[in-house]
Amino acid sequence: MTTPPVTATGPPAVALSEEELSRVDALWRAANYLSAGQIYLLDNPLLTEPLRAEHVKPRLLGHWGTSPGLNFVYAHLNRLISAHDVDMMFVTGPGHGGPALLANTWLEGSYPEVAPEAAQDAEGMRTLFRQFSFPGGVPSHVAPQVPGSIHEGGELGYSLAHAFGAAFDNPGLVVACVIGDGEAETGPLATGWHGNKFLDPARDGAVLPVLHLNGYKIANPTLLARIPGEELDDLLRGYGYDPYYVSGSDPVAMHQAMASALEAVLAGIRAIQSGGGPRPAWPMIVLRTPKGWTGPSEVDGKPVEGTWRAHQVPLPAVRENPRHLHALEAWLRSYRPEELFDASGAPVAEVTAVIPRGDRRMGANPHANGGLLLKPLRLPDIRAHAVTVKEPGGTGTEPTRVLGRYLRDVFSANDSARDFRLFGPDETASNRLDAVYEATAKAWQEATEPVDEHLARDGRVLEVLSEHQCQGWLEGYLLTGRHGLFSCYEAFVHIVDSMVNQHIKWLRVHREIPWRRPVASLNYLLTSHVWRQDHNGFSHQDPGFIDHVANKSSEVVRVYLPPDTNTLLSVAEHCLRSRDYVNVIVAGKNETPDWLGAEEAALHCARGAGIWEWACTFPYREPDVVLACAGDAPTIEVLAAVSLLRKHLPELAVRVVNVVDLMRLQPESEHPHGMSDREFDALFTPDRPVIFAYHGYPWLIHRLVYRRANHAGFHVRGYQEHGTTTTPFDMLVLNDMDRFRLVIDVIDRVPGLARTAGVVRQEMATARERHRHWIREHGEDLPEVRNWTWA
Amino acid sequence: MTTPPVTATGPPAVALSEEELSRVDALWRAANYLSAGQIYLLDNPLLTEPLRAEHVKPRLLGHWGTSPGLNFVYAHLNRLISAHDVDMMFVTGPGHGGPALLANTWLEGSYPEVAPEAAQDAEGMRTLFRQFSFPGGVPSHVAPQVPGSIHEGGELGYSLAHAFGAAFDNPGLVVACVIGDGEAETGPLATGWHGNKFLDPARDGAVLPVLHLNGYKIANPTLLARIPGEELDDLLRGYGYDPYYVSGSDPVAMHQAMASALEAVLAGIRAIQSGGGPRPAWPMIVLRTPKGWTGPSEVDGKPVEGTWRAHQVPLPAVRENPRHLHALEAWLRSYRPEELFDASGAPVAEVTAVIPRGDRRMGANPHANGGLLLKPLRLPDIRAHAVTVKEPGGTGTEPTRVLGRYLRDVFSANDSARDFRLFGPDETASNRLDAVYEATAKAWQEATEPVDEHLARDGRVLEVLSEHQCQGWLEGYLLTGRHGLFSCYEAFVHIVDSMVNQHIKWLRVHREIPWRRPVASLNYLLTSHVWRQDHNGFSHQDPGFIDHVANKSSEVVRVYLPPDTNTLLSVAEHCLRSRDYVNVIVAGKNETPDWLGAEEAALHCARGAGIWEWACTFPYREPDVVLACAGDAPTIEVLAAVSLLRKHLPELAVRVVNVVDLMRLQPESEHPHGMSDREFDALFTPDRPVIFAYHGYPWLIHRLVYRRANHAGFHVRGYQEHGTTTTPFDMLVLNDMDRFRLVIDVIDRVPGLARTAGVVRQEMATARERHRHWIREHGEDLPEVRNWTWA
Repeated sequence: MTTPPVTATGPPAVALSEEELSRVDALWRAANYLSAGQIYLLDNPLLTEPLRAEHVKPRLLGHWGTSPGLNFVYAHLNRLISAHDVDMMFVTGPGHGGPALLANTWLEGSYPEVAPEAAQDAEGMRTLFRQFSFPGGVPSHVAPQVPGSIHEGGELGYSLAHAFGAAFDNPGLVVACVIGDGEAETGPLATGWHGNKFLDPARDGAVLPVLHLNGYKIANPTLLARIPGEELDDLLRGYGYDPYYVSGSDPVAMHQAMASALEAVLAGIRAIQSGGGPRPAWPMIVLRTPKGWTGPSEVDGKPVEGTWRAHQVPLPAVRENPRHLHALEAWLRSYRPEELFDASGAPVAEVTAVIPRGDRRMGANPHANGGLLLKPLRLPDIRAHAVTVKEPGGTGTEPTRVLGRYLRDVFSANDSARDFRLFGPDETASNRLDAVYEATAKAWQEATEPVDEHLARDGRVLEVLSEHQCQGWLEGYLLTGRHGLFSCYEAFVHIVDSMVNQHIKWLRVHREIPWRRPVASLNYLLTSHVWRQDHNGFSHQDPGFIDHVANKSSEVVRVYLPPDTNTLLSVAEHCLRSRDYVNVIVAGKNETPDWLGAEEAALHCARGAGIWEWACTFPYREPDVVLACAGDAPTIEVLAAVSLLRKHLPELAVRVVNVVDLMRLQPESEHPHGMSDREFDALFTPDRPVIFAYHGYPWLIHRLVYRRANHAGFHVRGYQEHGTTTTPFDMLVLNDMDRFRLVIDVIDRVPGLARTAGVVRQEMATARERHRHWIREHGEDLPEVRNWTWA
Repeated sequence: MTTPPVTATGPPAVALSEEELSRVDALWRAANYLSAGQIYLLDNPLLTEPLRAEHVKPRLLGHWGTSPGLNFVYAHLNRLISAHDVDMMFVTGPGHGGPALLANTWLEGSYPEVAPEAAQDAEGMRTLFRQFSFPGGVPSHVAPQVPGSIHEGGELGYSLAHAFGAAFDNPGLVVACVIGDGEAETGPLATGWHGNKFLDPARDGAVLPVLHLNGYKIANPTLLARIPGEELDDLLRGYGYDPYYVSGSDPVAMHQAMASALEAVLAGIRAIQSGGGPRPAWPMIVLRTPKGWTGPSEVDGKPVEGTWRAHQVPLPAVRENPRHLHALEAWLRSYRPEELFDASGAPVAEVTAVIPRGDRRMGANPHANGGLLLKPLRLPDIRAHAVTVKEPGGTGTEPTRVLGRYLRDVFSANDSARDFRLFGPDETASNRLDAVYEATAKAWQEATEPVDEHLARDGRVLEVLSEHQCQGWLEGYLLTGRHGLFSCYEAFVHIVDSMVNQHIKWLRVHREIPWRRPVASLNYLLTSHVWRQDHNGFSHQDPGFIDHVANKSSEVVRVYLPPDTNTLLSVAEHCLRSRDYVNVIVAGKNETPDWLGAEEAALHCARGAGIWEWACTFPYREPDVVLACAGDAPTIEVLAAVSLLRKHLPELAVRVVNVVDLMRLQPESEHPHGMSDREFDALFTPDRPVIFAYHGYPWLIHRLVYRRANHAGFHVRGYQEHGTTTTPFDMLVLNDMDRFRLVIDVIDRVPGLARTAGVVRQEMATARERHRHWIREHGEDLPEVRNWTWA
């Protein structure tokens, strides 16, 4: 490791006074001591006695490398906040920043407030150390247990997107975001920088990126630390930032350089926010320090500080190797704990002097516990938007287009609160939600051309061709106490599979933490779905996101498949009111028959699943067969199949069950929405054949119902990965979910029917053949299918 | 739209002669004509008669906007290839480039060679037009059906990664990669630029990025087209490129500018490749043209050319609106088709003059049909690496560490062919595969420091902290006829869920295309898995990738869970030999008992699932219970449970079944590896209780076996999303898959046992309690668990 020279660009240094420097340094040393202590110590937290092997944890788990840099940034931001009364949050990008953030929030008192067992005394410090990466304790990342955090950092890449999400519509807030140079290599982070093209200096807060170049990942140098300095400067300026460089390893010089740079940066932010003009180049910090700074410089003859070897546990064999034990003690004592903590174990005044007070402490900033600030959305009455349904299927509407009008009114109703946003990857209009532009615009800070439409600096729709950005921004927006909806092509929401995993995990843990207040749910509207990709093809066909989320914590996950416009409105309103969930709504944008009036829709959605009596052939008879459906396209096919059955097999008692809330199918024991066996049997019968037409992969239904009495009676049709560029009805035929196939299924499954209904069965098979010939010739579906209506 | 002025930077223009210019322009016009024709025409392909409504497709599906720009690039690259005999591939980033690439490959003859029905005559042109976005035809993206392609473009973001993957170890090749300005906003593309830090000018080929700024996405301006020009220039230079700008809309001036820029770029590439020195700034092109260039400038009074309205179908109502029909005819005739095609419909010599011949045609480049070039890997004998197993469980090894030694020898054996690479996000050493560094290094083009290890410019291990990069590079490497393995933390492979979706889809279609030759499988080694995240916590625990791929085409997907070192070797060797699959191998890196010797392991893996007779209590009796396992941690727990049962319930006949190849559980009808019902019943019995300990989410096993006779007898234990930072054994207890719980399950499930074995049941429950207290106190697992061995 070549130690970089100390440099700081920007305006001339605002030199810290001796006293200030000493205070910032004391705070930094204290945080470094506590960070190392968490990784190593079970006991003897204040080193009041010589360190012995039994004071050390048996399993050394944790990450030292990033911690001193984070502590350095945190200490300096504390000083800045105190000096200028800044409303500031801290987003910790580096994956394993847990020790640093726990150390700092302990020192500022925000952690002991939420975890009284870790009080600011020796016993509390012992607890702080012991719990870290310990069974029943806290993880090595900045988890929900850490006050002040909205960002885990376990899976890297999302810190900047979270920071921008937090800054939107928070004009007084500065979101400091430390980006690790490992994280900076990820795709989401690489495009995350472009958040500045959507941040309105007048109506939004500021994001202060601190790119921390400590040079190494787990086992490799990092790209941004090794490319030539001019290239890095070009890159950051190319991203639209004005970088200030703070580089070195000498603490005194570095303190002066960092303080000076931060003063300049804050002045720059304030100037931008009070100015006008085109999109500014926002200031940022590039901090170049050794990895594992202030830790052991060499272990067993190999360099450690300033290398990848400092990533995790620099001294790996402390319990076994007396030399390692000795080195650990020397390292810990190098921070001079006796100067930092009083006899009781509390940090001395010198350490806490630069820490801000109350809510200005970054661990106590209410934005980072967004539920504290959350106000319910003002939701307009959905009945004003509901479609009038005189008879089921008598009319047709485009569900998302109607939803767009409702969302427009949501924007209007919450215009003054500015706490609702719509997110999408360039698809809001394609998904037919464009009525929202009557109430707001798309956020856009660049120049505009005469041909542009609906762009404005303070627009509240965020469109960028990156699902990662949409997801990350929305997460940051929600966790700071606001509301939102992400509309996405169904197939491409898999791009954020891993991000939603992490958000669900965050919510799962957050729900168990008493001081974390409920936040608005993360709402997905998945449209342009698998059954209607007429313009595209196989690559755009994938209903598997439902399966993906269904694996995750049932406390958090909800899946809705509204079959028509009014049910979509009802579900959407419900989701916008809800808290602490991830709601997945799958709904089409193409014209769909209106099955239920507003009241019926509300009732049906409240029940989550129900018998559609108007569609049953003998609603008061025990059915011969149940035709069940979940999803808009399956519902149409089931009703079309019922039409055919009514005509061809008029004596058959067919029950129609529609499922809106997919998790209703699970047992009560598995999901809070799960039906009791009695309810389930009342809908699906204990023993009659059930032909279930489902929007997605059929086996998910089997997974949900395999414990039910009638599971063996379930025959599920769905998407079987037979995708291509073709017509809507052909997609159904290819995947054996078309009306003709469903009728054949009924004939094959109802006892005795195969024998008597052979002619009908043959007619259905012939219709499928006719379809195949017709589309090859005409390129569109059979007229009888295109023009079919239920009424 | 403000039309940008024509500019080209770089060396003075190499002016095209009148004749050359005329030829390039004719080729471009022909491709534009054919692109528009595909979107619109059912018939009258050569416009030999006036255009009538019935000549037009009933459903207008396709994307015009990007096509003329792609055609422009393709025509100019053709000229460059012909002039300099360049070995060049074409990667089409823009999502809907289908019409352009089909047009160009038709014109160069490579498409008619693989699709004789689309011959170079009027009837063939009619077929070319008709099939586009038509049932049974080809999609709007560059799908596997398009010769010369290795890249779909349906889901945006991966073009640059694919291009770099193709260029690695192909020193003679230039991979031209057109990047759409929409795609450029995605995360994967934003980090994709950094591929240049891994490309060895001496041993790899070149990537020539062409950033196509046509200004608009579906409904929005694009970021990179709108940021100030100096910022864009900084950004591209910051990424390490030397951009040449070609901007404008006047065809003549643009032809000269593009030809001049390409000459300079090619000269630059050649100079870099013959030089030495530090990583160069590779040349690239920034092409700024109107969207929908040469299409209708205005429709219904609104500007179209040069705006987002040109994205899809510029004239939407041709069949219904005579003015649109007229405008379409005028547009098509503006290309003067009568000058471009002879009476038979074949392109005239003027059009084809600049097209290269034979394999130099980009649609015929053998690299783009990698199976043509694929050579089998030379695979060392795994027996040389196998662990000697005197008795099951008598020794323990770290499976991935042994695999690392095998992979080291794979590198050595294929050193001269240079057609194998290992990919990983900074985790090769963490995943304990670091023996490979004895045979090769990590590719690295930046400066090195004395502390660095295993970095070299021609290293064949690719490590970057971006799963997207690893996946994209590997896909590009495989599709151009080479071999590879991607090792990844299990939880974070979800980051590439959507990419593997698309690769599986590509392979599904590729397998059905006779001229596409088999390529090496995409092999995942998922390690640092859910059960051993001791250093991390909940965010690092997720076995759901198996579920994700299990939804996809069974022709392509294989999942292996080797329980020990020798089975891992056997599975890995099998996967490296295989073709056209996506193989998911899940294996631990921590020390694991060696259960099977080399021969037994080979046999067991070939069968995919089998009875472990040595572990059964009465192997020749009909079992009272089957204990099944899949995965390394479950296998240990099952055998530990058998130990306990043997001791506490010595009369019980326990059968142990281990499953390596998960898809064996499916019915034959569902998966090519599926077992017959007879085989299944022979292993699992038709009616005895089966306690199945599974690595991942338990419901996947239910999904795979729900059609089996004994499904009701299956009781599956697995990961239930109870994750946290804790000890390995505690993870098992939290998720009810520990040995004590499995014994309780046996007692509860074997008829009559609950009555007689109450004391044993209580002992097991007590052991679980003892465990909970022990870890809270000691931070590590019970000694009896840590020290447990089977032998």
